Amino acid sequence: MERITTIAALRDRVAAARAAGATIGFVPTMGALHDGHLALVRLAATLSEVVVVSVFVNPSQFDRPDDLAAYPRDLDGDETALASLGLRVPVVVFAPSVEEMYPRAPLTTVSVATLGEHLCGASRPGHFEGVATVVTKLLSIVAPDLAVFGRKDRQQLQVVRRLVADLELPVEIVAGPTQREDDGLARSSRNRRLDAEDRIAAAALSRALRASVLAAERARDEGREVLPREVRAAAAAVLADVPLVVDYVEVVDAATMQPTSAPVSETTPAVVAVAGEVGGVRLIDNVELGDPEDEARLLSATS
Amino acid sequence: MERITTIAALRDRVAAARAAGATIGFVPTMGALHDGHLALVRLAATLSEVVVVSVFVNPSQFDRPDDLAAYPRDLDGDETALASLGLRVPVVVFAPSVEEMYPRAPLTTVSVATLGEHLCGASRPGHFEGVATVVTKLLSIVAPDLAVFGRKDRQQLQVVRRLVADLELPVEIVAGPTQREDDGLARSSRNRRLDAEDRIAAAALSRALRASVLAAERARDEGREVLPREVRAAAAAVLADVPLVVDYVEVVDAATMQPTSAPVSETTPAVVAVAGEVGGVRLIDNVELGDPEDEARLLSATS
Repeated sequence: MERITTIAALRDRVAAARAAGATIGFVPTMGALHDGHLALVRLAATLSEVVVVSVFVNPSQFDRPDDLAAYPRDLDGDETALASLGLRVPVVVFAPSVEEMYPRAPLTTVSVATLGEHLCGASRPGHFEGVATVVTKLLSIVAPDLAVFGRKDRQQLQVVRRLVADLELPVEIVAGPTQREDDGLARSSRNRRLDAEDRIAAAALSRALRASVLAAERARDEGREVLPREVRAAAAAVLADVPLVVDYVEVVDAATMQPTSAPVSETTPAVVAVAGEVGGVRLIDNVELGDPEDEARLLSATS
Repeated sequence: MERITTIAALRDRVAAARAAGATIGFVPTMGALHDGHLALVRLAATLSEVVVVSVFVNPSQFDRPDDLAAYPRDLDGDETALASLGLRVPVVVFAPSVEEMYPRAPLTTVSVATLGEHLCGASRPGHFEGVATVVTKLLSIVAPDLAVFGRKDRQQLQVVRRLVADLELPVEIVAGPTQREDDGLARSSRNRRLDAEDRIAAAALSRALRASVLAAERARDEGREVLPREVRAAAAAVLADVPLVVDYVEVVDAATMQPTSAPVSETTPAVVAVAGEVGGVRLIDNVELGDPEDEARLLSATS
C-alpha cells in the first residue's frame, strides 16, 4: 500500500497520475476503516483510475476532547484492509499528521448556514464547521475528479454537497449507501467501543428507522399521505423502551435538512434521522423516505 | 478584448490555455478600472502567459446597499482600458452576472478570524467574509497559478494570504504596489465620486501616511526606536484639521493586522492604516513601515 504523509508529496503523486491521463477518486476518512469505508473505496475504484483515501482524525470537528482522544486509530490495520480489497486501480493512502495539516493555528473557517445547525449540529457545536473546513482543504490538496461520502453521515453529505455547489469547487460528490452489521446496526468506527449489551441497545436505532419505513409503506398501501409526524412516531416508539439516551428522532427535508411537515413522496423526499448514546458512544443513523432504493436497502438489512 | 460571462466557458478557456502549456495569472476586480488596477494587470502579465481579469461587483461584501448601488460600473470602458495596455499576453475578461455567481442564495461562507475583525472589518460588518468567500470561489473557478492583489487594500491582502495558506489553495498571492494620483491620493474606483473640494480633503490621507514615514525616519536618524504611538500621532495630527470624517488611524502588525505597540523594524514591520469619509465616499490608505520599498514609494508619491 502506497502511504504518503505530506501535502507536497500527495500533490506530486496526483499530478503524475493526472499527467498519465488518470482520473482521481477520493474517499476522505478518519481511519479505523470498516466495511462501510471499504464499500466507499470500492465504489470510488469503479468510477476513477486512481483512488486517494485520506486517513486524518481532524481535531477541529470534535466538540469533545474525550471523544477525540478515544477515537480509534490503526493506520497499519487500515492499509491491510485496503490491500485486502485487491482493487485493480492504485490506492494511495494520504495520512498527514496534525502538524502537516495545521502547521499554525488556523484562522480560516468554512461554514454552511442552516444545513449544519440542526440535528447533529445542535448537539455538537462547531462540528460541521470543522467538517466543512477540512473537506474544503482536503479537496484543494487532492484535487480529485470525484469524492465519495457515505449516506450514513447524511447531514455531512448535504453540507459537503452544498459547499461544493456554493464555492464552485470542481469535483463531483458521490453518495455511497450505508453498510450494516447483521443486526442492522450501521457500520461505524465507533461500534468497536460497544460491548455486547450496548450492541443490543444500539441495534434499536436501525429498527426505529425500519419502523418508519414500514409506517410509510402502510400509509401508501392505504392510499394515505406519508406524514412526517406519523413516521417519526413509529421510529420514536421503537426507541422508547431501549436503554439508549436518544439525542433526536427527526424527519427533515432531504435537501435542506430542516424539519418538515410536508407529505413525503419521491419528489419531496425526507430523511428520518436518529441519534443516541449507548455506553458513552454516540451513534447516528438515517433513511431517506421517498427514495425507493434507500428504503429497500434498509428493509433488507434489518428485521 | 475577450469577454467571458459564464463559469463553464471560463473554465474551458483556462483549461485550453493550460493544455497549451500557459501559466495563468489572475487579477480579481470590481471593475471601474483605474491606473491602480492596470498596474496590477501589467504585473500579472510579466509573471504569467494568460491573464484573467474578473470584473464582478460582489454584493455580499457591501455592508451598505447605497454603497453597492453607487459603485461605478463601466465594463466597456474597462475593456478599452485593458486593450490600451497593449500587452503581449492574452487578457481574458471574466464578467459574470450576479445570477451566474449566485444562482441560489448562498449558505456557505469563508471567514478569517481576527484578521478581518479590526480596522475596516469593525466598520463594515460582514465585509471580509464577503471578500473571503468570493475570492475562494473565484480562485476555484479560475484556478490560476498566481493572483495579484493591491497593497492599497492591505487588510484584504492579509485575509486572502491567510485563507490561501489555511485552506492550502494551490495559488501564489502576489502583492502589487499602491498607485497614486499626482496629489498622493491612492487610486480607487471611488475617487471618481469626489468633487474638487473633496479631493483636497481626501489627499490628506496620504499626507498623514507621509507624516508617519517621516516620523519613523526621524526616530531612526536620532537612534531611537520607531514607536507605533509616535508614528500614529504624526498621522493623526495631519488629519486633525481636515474636513474629513476619520474612521480610524491605526498602527497594526503587518502579518496579523492587530494593534501593536512593538517597536517597528524590518523584522517587525507594521502597517499604518487610515480610513475616512469625504463627501459620502469612504476612502482607505496605508503604508508598511519597516518595508523600505513601500516607505520610499509613499514618499516619492507625496509631498
